[in-house]
Amino acid sequence: MKEYFMEPKQIVVIGGVAAGASFAARVRRLNEHARIILVERGKDVSFANCGLPYYIGGEIQTRGALSVQTPETLKALLNLDVKTHTEAIRIDREKKQVYVKNIISGEDEWLDYDKLMLAPGASPRIPDVPGIHHEKILTLRNLADMDRISEVAKAGKRAVVVGAGFIGLEMAEQLHRKGLSVEVVQYGPQVLPQLGKRMAKLLENELVQHGIVLHLNDRVVRYENRNSILECFLESGTVLKADFVVLSVGVEPESRLAREAHLVLGKNGHIVVNDFMQTSDADIYAAGDVVETAHRLSNERTAVPLGGPANRQGRVAADHIFLGEKARPYPGSLGTAIVRVFGTTAGTVGWSENALEKNGRSYGMVTVNDFHHAGYYPGAKPLVLTVFWDRDTDVLLGAQAAGQEGVDKRLDVMATAIAAQMTIDDLVHLELAYAPPFGSAKDIVNIAGFAATNKRDGLVDTISELPDNPDAQIIDVRAKAMADADPVAGGINIPMPALRNHLDRLDRDKPVVTVCALGKNSYFASRILKQNGFDVKSLEGGMKMMTTGRAGLSGKKDE
Amino acid sequence: MKEYFMEPKQIVVIGGVAAGASFAARVRRLNEHARIILVERGKDVSFANCGLPYYIGGEIQTRGALSVQTPETLKALLNLDVKTHTEAIRIDREKKQVYVKNIISGEDEWLDYDKLMLAPGASPRIPDVPGIHHEKILTLRNLADMDRISEVAKAGKRAVVVGAGFIGLEMAEQLHRKGLSVEVVQYGPQVLPQLGKRMAKLLENELVQHGIVLHLNDRVVRYENRNSILECFLESGTVLKADFVVLSVGVEPESRLAREAHLVLGKNGHIVVNDFMQTSDADIYAAGDVVETAHRLSNERTAVPLGGPANRQGRVAADHIFLGEKARPYPGSLGTAIVRVFGTTAGTVGWSENALEKNGRSYGMVTVNDFHHAGYYPGAKPLVLTVFWDRDTDVLLGAQAAGQEGVDKRLDVMATAIAAQMTIDDLVHLELAYAPPFGSAKDIVNIAGFAATNKRDGLVDTISELPDNPDAQIIDVRAKAMADADPVAGGINIPMPALRNHLDRLDRDKPVVTVCALGKNSYFASRILKQNGFDVKSLEGGMKMMTTGRAGLSGKKDE
Repeated sequence: MKEYFMEPKQIVVIGGVAAGASFAARVRRLNEHARIILVERGKDVSFANCGLPYYIGGEIQTRGALSVQTPETLKALLNLDVKTHTEAIRIDREKKQVYVKNIISGEDEWLDYDKLMLAPGASPRIPDVPGIHHEKILTLRNLADMDRISEVAKAGKRAVVVGAGFIGLEMAEQLHRKGLSVEVVQYGPQVLPQLGKRMAKLLENELVQHGIVLHLNDRVVRYENRNSILECFLESGTVLKADFVVLSVGVEPESRLAREAHLVLGKNGHIVVNDFMQTSDADIYAAGDVVETAHRLSNERTAVPLGGPANRQGRVAADHIFLGEKARPYPGSLGTAIVRVFGTTAGTVGWSENALEKNGRSYGMVTVNDFHHAGYYPGAKPLVLTVFWDRDTDVLLGAQAAGQEGVDKRLDVMATAIAAQMTIDDLVHLELAYAPPFGSAKDIVNIAGFAATNKRDGLVDTISELPDNPDAQIIDVRAKAMADADPVAGGINIPMPALRNHLDRLDRDKPVVTVCALGKNSYFASRILKQNGFDVKSLEGGMKMMTTGRAGLSGKKDE
Repeated sequence: MKEYFMEPKQIVVIGGVAAGASFAARVRRLNEHARIILVERGKDVSFANCGLPYYIGGEIQTRGALSVQTPETLKALLNLDVKTHTEAIRIDREKKQVYVKNIISGEDEWLDYDKLMLAPGASPRIPDVPGIHHEKILTLRNLADMDRISEVAKAGKRAVVVGAGFIGLEMAEQLHRKGLSVEVVQYGPQVLPQLGKRMAKLLENELVQHGIVLHLNDRVVRYENRNSILECFLESGTVLKADFVVLSVGVEPESRLAREAHLVLGKNGHIVVNDFMQTSDADIYAAGDVVETAHRLSNERTAVPLGGPANRQGRVAADHIFLGEKARPYPGSLGTAIVRVFGTTAGTVGWSENALEKNGRSYGMVTVNDFHHAGYYPGAKPLVLTVFWDRDTDVLLGAQAAGQEGVDKRLDVMATAIAAQMTIDDLVHLELAYAPPFGSAKDIVNIAGFAATNKRDGLVDTISELPDNPDAQIIDVRAKAMADADPVAGGINIPMPALRNHLDRLDRDKPVVTVCALGKNSYFASRILKQNGFDVKSLEGGMKMMTTGRAGLSGKKDE
């Protein structure tokens, strides 16, 4: 019955949330007899940090639901010695000791370790802007931050959210939900820079439709406090007034301790670890938001400050200490992420278009529209999916999705397919669960495979924007009523069923662009024209994607 | 601009629904100039056959929603020559002709073909039981069948559904939804034979809770019509009275035409095709419910009469005719399937336990419980997932899931992982989309990976039923209130947090079985006991799975 694992006697863990808590729990499962000391600077351990915005907005009503564990339950369940309010000050790698200090009582001590885990996380970035250090300019990292924002939100009416990444968008929605008027300032030209511009537009529309004011391509250059009102001076000259500001412009790894112990850090200050989460000191591990790991699709180092990777990295480290050769390496991160903004959900996995461009990859890309389940079953909601692949190998590189329902499912399928290094041909033949309430006989993921392989095989040429070329003949194959209601500038309406009989209306010497609502009929039309000798391109994604400002994805099944 | 594909001049397609319609559509995209003749015995083409039960039940209210295309729209959109009410009688392979006859007008003709596609589908099996040929003993295959069942359902009060497979379960729910009292007769010991017994029980509970009477391990041996009431005499002696009966006991391939043309058939009468859907005659293709293909996980031949495979097979055949070397083979079917029965959804992908046993495979198996999204976010619903893998290679072989929400997503992830030949280690590190409304930092799919690798690595021994051995000490680690409310026969309640301090209550010379609600704490407890020298096994899936008759999956988060 005895298990012959390596048995370090004392394990010290710095940081008691996702990575640190997962590590400690797994260590205990693997070794009942080691002493495990969990050192946490804050008041709380193992809380549900991804739930914080939802408590502020009132979707989660019980604060206790967020406190997964307490020091007492961790003692009882896992026999952990938890030290909260305790900061790790210094590591003595030679003596294998870490110096810690209780920030309330001032008590200090040197803790011996056989193995040390660094999981201090990352702290919200505070831009260097005049006036930013103010009691009502807040960030959100832990339960205390959450309580503080809840308190000022209760008293206030106007909030400014700086940064429109995942947390910024969640905060904007949740503060709006609490009845505040919300303005969002985003440095770049769109929300969620990882996302394709047209998908980002869907989220932006959601914000705007709910009365949230969006300041894109802008940033705060100065904060001033005037009679308890915070004035945010934007680079554009606009001045926003708010009762409080929430900053969500990214995070910075808390790697001071590691740096001072001369562990190797990456170029952005993350702790560098190997595939088993070992730092440059074999007895010191690191995991979670503080580390950079391999990207799962390349040899590049990358930091993915998200809960899923943190939890699994903690587990990998524990396995490496106690399971010996049975331990498996961390395979790298894909950066799968999702956000719900009111009625629209969007997310991304793997490489984005920007990242592919920046890395000079030769990639293919396709965007398709369909419904989240059988169109004939009530409640079918439109969904858009973009897929990237390597042009040389056809291997999948990334995906993005947006819509009202079923976005998480398609991202998860794509995350699995990408992790497995599947190709666009494999997407064609994924055999997904189909009954009318759940999917379609040809799921949008299959359709993305069809469209991608059609492109690769030269069956269709696409464009993503209407052409400037005044010579181009734009053929709108939508039904007449739809074309009349939402005309394409310079377009000729020849509804799809009439196309074959009206080829004589087209000039064979000029290029043709086919256009429809969602991109499917224009592909069909392009096949007819191409085989009749025309030089033709199909507008990918259709007019719905082009005119999200008006119709967006809220259109019904209409082609 | 010209595309140099092979250009057969005339293509004849027998069967105008899933496989046949997909084939014809893809042929037209690939070849604008071929003549395509679509021969359909029924009145309708390209209808949504998976939607038929939902129209009968009234969930789908518009009959037109099910008619995807008509002969006229197929002519306009795809330039297909559609012949409905037309039966294919005979193939002359030498002359490359097929003899067809309009079953209404009696008109007949020989159609030349360069390539012939056989996609006649499968017909509902009619068991050889006295009295079964009666106008109110019905099957469901097409719109006409649907209309007939709707009509008798409107007039009737009591229905008997024979067969509790996917269609039988959908029909039982939908007839109940129409206000009928419904009884279901199933030959085997459970509904959905593909599903594990405990998951099947969840569906059975749903039926029973809605007042549907379930006759398991029974079958109809005789039907009698007495004063417009159908009496169904069961083998057990029970007599059911019904206004009508719906038979759903499987389907049989419509391969008469192929057999008479001496094409090679499989042992159950399906047409044998190669990976490009070619029959034993290279100019005759077949696809859909009438064929058997390779199973994606073995070299075995298998028939998967479902819409997804049918559609994709049609496409593969068209590609093989027109794309030449660019065509890709059909990779085989996984048999992914899903069904919703009132509030519970269940489904399966790949091998089932029965199939693994029958094939003598050496497999591992694990069942885990968790919530469909973060437990702390409102609306989290319990979910159960079973995963099978190859014990020699750790490669995934199958999965099953059941629950109220998110079942389709996990099946799709598993279908993708299985198609990619991922291992249980890969499940650990799937990086799925996580935000509180959509998932968990450790999704149930990751947890299945944790549990499977723990088993493989010898960290835990599990049992799936409580032991008979009177010597075994059953340790119930649930909270006292829960243990009191739902006691385990012969169990000793030591709540998890107290376990380490009460090891002296256990006899070290007797085996221990740990038990909890969902299987997680009993695993934790088994780790403590194992490392303290006990011979211990954990009850997999927990008491919730054991006592589905009482608590089922409807329990709240309780460990």
